[in-house]
Amino acid sequence: MFNRMAIIGLGLIGGSIGLALHKAKAAQQIVGYDLGKGISNQARKSGAIDQPYTALADAVRGAELIILATPVGAMRSLLQDIAQSATPGAVVTDVASTKAQVISWAEEFLPSSVAFVGGHPMTGKELSGVESADADLFQGRIYCLTPTARTRPVAINKVSALIEALGARVRFLEPAEHDGQVAGISHLPFVASVALMNTVAEGPAWGDAAMLAAGGFRDMSRLAAGDPQMYRDICLTNSEALTRWLNEYIATLTTLRDRIAGHDRNLDETFARAQQLRLQWQSSHNITENS
Amino acid sequence: MFNRMAIIGLGLIGGSIGLALHKAKAAQQIVGYDLGKGISNQARKSGAIDQPYTALADAVRGAELIILATPVGAMRSLLQDIAQSATPGAVVTDVASTKAQVISWAEEFLPSSVAFVGGHPMTGKELSGVESADADLFQGRIYCLTPTARTRPVAINKVSALIEALGARVRFLEPAEHDGQVAGISHLPFVASVALMNTVAEGPAWGDAAMLAAGGFRDMSRLAAGDPQMYRDICLTNSEALTRWLNEYIATLTTLRDRIAGHDRNLDETFARAQQLRLQWQSSHNITENS
Repeated sequence: MFNRMAIIGLGLIGGSIGLALHKAKAAQQIVGYDLGKGISNQARKSGAIDQPYTALADAVRGAELIILATPVGAMRSLLQDIAQSATPGAVVTDVASTKAQVISWAEEFLPSSVAFVGGHPMTGKELSGVESADADLFQGRIYCLTPTARTRPVAINKVSALIEALGARVRFLEPAEHDGQVAGISHLPFVASVALMNTVAEGPAWGDAAMLAAGGFRDMSRLAAGDPQMYRDICLTNSEALTRWLNEYIATLTTLRDRIAGHDRNLDETFARAQQLRLQWQSSHNITENS
Repeated sequence: MFNRMAIIGLGLIGGSIGLALHKAKAAQQIVGYDLGKGISNQARKSGAIDQPYTALADAVRGAELIILATPVGAMRSLLQDIAQSATPGAVVTDVASTKAQVISWAEEFLPSSVAFVGGHPMTGKELSGVESADADLFQGRIYCLTPTARTRPVAINKVSALIEALGARVRFLEPAEHDGQVAGISHLPFVASVALMNTVAEGPAWGDAAMLAAGGFRDMSRLAAGDPQMYRDICLTNSEALTRWLNEYIATLTTLRDRIAGHDRNLDETFARAQQLRLQWQSSHNITENS
């Protein structure tokens, strides 16, 4: 059980962490801070935190575990600020979608008396904000941790205990390994969705075509509604891996285009391969279509 | 009210047409034919048709309205066969996803005593087969009709009455206009999904990355599970329009890749444009996320 825990950033993820930790009775006191006006009071009312603070330093001071639940774009200055106020012995972890860049900032700014373990819960919702927070958001989900050679075991143990309290399953990865994998399964799909939405809606006759668009288009454009600044920062902090994946994706599409233009009757073999890979993934990872 | 109607092809769409027409009491007799062993008997048991036939000619003979509910790949030889057995005065319509090619076959093979009106209901389900058929599948959906200068008004009226009985809304388009629009909102999303599935799953570390893949990847890969032969035939009969859309999509992705590789901080403007277009489409067309 933790003594004092601080959650910085009280949106969907930060709020859900607070609710889950309360449900698991995992901490004596959970305090919180959010830049947004009124957000930390709202988080207290909803039961995500016990005590809101209006100054970051006051929230962080004395905390045994500090959870940074902000978008990756806020992490650099946040780590600089926390370096001034964290109590020696504190463990800091984050939930950002890219890890190598955040870890390099943590190593640059945090004093050696404060440990850092990068984390990334593999969950989410279409809705954002503390009002959508859910104590069961992490239940059964994978939660990546990316310790480095410099990370002390005691810090890894503390963050692993946090993840267990959330009901999630720890998966350890190298930071670059994590960033390469999520670039493929998460950041590339986002860019593919944005490109599809803009291509189709800026093409000819969108006003008419929009009326015909149905379930397939809905699924393929859903990610495009994601938060633009948050995704910009994800793309820019994972630029190298994402660029590699985009090159592969564009190459695959170019081959398919040439075969479609050339009336290649063996196209169905490539489509069958995709079908088989999708069904395999779905069944071996218990993916349900509308969860 | 129709006298005898024949449904050729008793899968999800053909079966649902039969159920909807029975529910609307729109025909005196609905007969059916399917290549698949036992399918037409199954359709009779489920109430989609009144009378199954084991020979196409017997199903078609004497029918006032003949509905071709097979994949587009079967249409050419089906139209050749029907030309031999359709009763003079009969109206033929189809439900295939591409129209210009089907219409050119109909004009090539059908005698002048048999009218043809191309159709395409904008609906579907993840499940296929007559066992997934649903009398309400067309309710409130758009149903495209693509008559040409050669289509007689009496035939258009008959097919419009069919669509009304299904509970759908008619939308008239030129065949090429239809094919261009569905290439963008339906066939391009399919190819984008296939390319994503194959790129990511054939990339490095898929075995590990597959465990991290969550809701975003699920949505973006769902279409890739579609029927390979059916989609091959759709792509090949709409090759020109689809190739144009693929060129635009690849160009959009290439620009995005260059901006991500170049750390362009204004990326969020392009993401915000996609977000705005998605939310606009969703709200103006009453799109619900999980229907």
